[in-house]
Amino acid sequence: MRYNVLGGKMNRGLTVAETLRILKRGQALSEEEIFKANLLGWCIEWLQAFFLVSDDIMDASKTRRGQPCWYLADGIGMVAINDAFILESAIYFFLKKHFKKDAYYVDLLELFHETTYQTELGQLLDLITAPEDSVDLSKFSIEKHHFIVTYKTAYYSFYLPVALAMHMAGVKDEAAFKQAEEILLPLGEYFQVQDDYLDCYGDPVKIGKIGTDIEDNKCSWLINQALDKSSADQRKVLDENYGRKNEANVAAVKEVYKQLDIEGRFKSYEEESYNRLTGLISKVDHPLLNQDVFTSFMKRIYKRTK
Amino acid sequence: MRYNVLGGKMNRGLTVAETLRILKRGQALSEEEIFKANLLGWCIEWLQAFFLVSDDIMDASKTRRGQPCWYLADGIGMVAINDAFILESAIYFFLKKHFKKDAYYVDLLELFHETTYQTELGQLLDLITAPEDSVDLSKFSIEKHHFIVTYKTAYYSFYLPVALAMHMAGVKDEAAFKQAEEILLPLGEYFQVQDDYLDCYGDPVKIGKIGTDIEDNKCSWLINQALDKSSADQRKVLDENYGRKNEANVAAVKEVYKQLDIEGRFKSYEEESYNRLTGLISKVDHPLLNQDVFTSFMKRIYKRTK
Repeated sequence: MRYNVLGGKMNRGLTVAETLRILKRGQALSEEEIFKANLLGWCIEWLQAFFLVSDDIMDASKTRRGQPCWYLADGIGMVAINDAFILESAIYFFLKKHFKKDAYYVDLLELFHETTYQTELGQLLDLITAPEDSVDLSKFSIEKHHFIVTYKTAYYSFYLPVALAMHMAGVKDEAAFKQAEEILLPLGEYFQVQDDYLDCYGDPVKIGKIGTDIEDNKCSWLINQALDKSSADQRKVLDENYGRKNEANVAAVKEVYKQLDIEGRFKSYEEESYNRLTGLISKVDHPLLNQDVFTSFMKRIYKRTK
Repeated sequence: MRYNVLGGKMNRGLTVAETLRILKRGQALSEEEIFKANLLGWCIEWLQAFFLVSDDIMDASKTRRGQPCWYLADGIGMVAINDAFILESAIYFFLKKHFKKDAYYVDLLELFHETTYQTELGQLLDLITAPEDSVDLSKFSIEKHHFIVTYKTAYYSFYLPVALAMHMAGVKDEAAFKQAEEILLPLGEYFQVQDDYLDCYGDPVKIGKIGTDIEDNKCSWLINQALDKSSADQRKVLDENYGRKNEANVAAVKEVYKQLDIEGRFKSYEEESYNRLTGLISKVDHPLLNQDVFTSFMKRIYKRTK
């Protein structure tokens, strides 16, 4: 648990208490509320650890957060699969221990079940769209990228922490959850597109790694934009060079990105997303919600460089 | 789901409706009760599929139920890990769909969570006690065998189907569940010891496979009995021959088993278990239980040859 749950930025986990504070409109949280909100935050981190331990096996990754992936750690191997399961089980152990008597206990259980399932569906589509071993760009599309990032990332990273805080705040109305979801999923998608952009164009020092999406045949926003706009000749270059672990291949792909001004397309996308999301947020009118929940997210991620 | 959930004997799944029938003391089950009991039975089969798909990867198994293991099926590979997760998620999808309005819905969720966790702990101890690649019989013991079979098998195969039926029958009293558990766990252990026995001494035609526990370094009841009774010389033979995929090694281990009359020890264990369990069953006095729940199990498994 120490090896796999710790070491991340813990943004997701910290968001639960932060959101609860905003939902309570400045009213101070009790000791118990802080404890429970943070416990739910830890449950998200546990859920993420479950995904990361198993994703690293499926992606044949080598390192994670600056250390060998768990399945490559000394004496572990495929036992890591069962260890991942135990990380998932811990969530329900903690929820039972600390929330059994709360009216929203069953809502927490269902929310974790559904988010887990959504993330697994996103991972499934990602794995069959961009297999580690065979490159076939005709499998990619902007629509698939949209589905993958929404299911694989946005639900558990953006919707889950806010929905957990809403349950703690006593929100029961389905319409409030729906309104939150309608902003948080596109916000999560925008965040992931930034991630895809930074992988290629970000400063490795700031983002803490050297991007390898092109080498790894990732179904990134960038390649999908390029595929959408490429001429027959450019498409040929992409087909022949994407997903190959070689400097010259990567350079050829980046040259096509340059010809198509993919960086410029990202800048436009970023502006357009900001305006669209700000518009969506300004329309949030549910009495149990608070626009600040979403603007605080937006402030943290707009034009981020890391 | 078809590839991995179907193809077993489905004893566990069928036990839910059978137990419910006994608990209702001959009163006919309604269409809805039959449907729901069988749905819970299918959830156990789904849970088992989740375990089997992942266990086969961890054990580097080749075949399961007469076909290649899922991770070895055409075009699957490590994606099988995520597929296993989806099999698990299906349980909670079905429970929500069909039991959300029932008073015992949250009990079902908790029972599946806890049983899953117990099974994972059993699998963990099994994997670290008897790793695929390194043979070290000093790690084995009768106590560890007891823990492994109880956690890895007895909870989900014996306790779970009965406890599910008890929830459907409206049982709430913790004492009734405790009494059921106190019989079903030793019954499950006895069943697994039979399995270990049949792996070595059963008729391959009847059990449908050729046992390989000795070759596979399994922490079987037989080797633990042999370790318990062996002389220094016999122990040396076991250390040098157990867990090796070679006919001569297997024959050497079996020769020690013969010298120590492990078969005879099993026959005594079987008699002793039968008497002990029959005694336990005869003392079941909870008004919401029925001794027939347990005697019907006992009848099915006593002196089984397959």
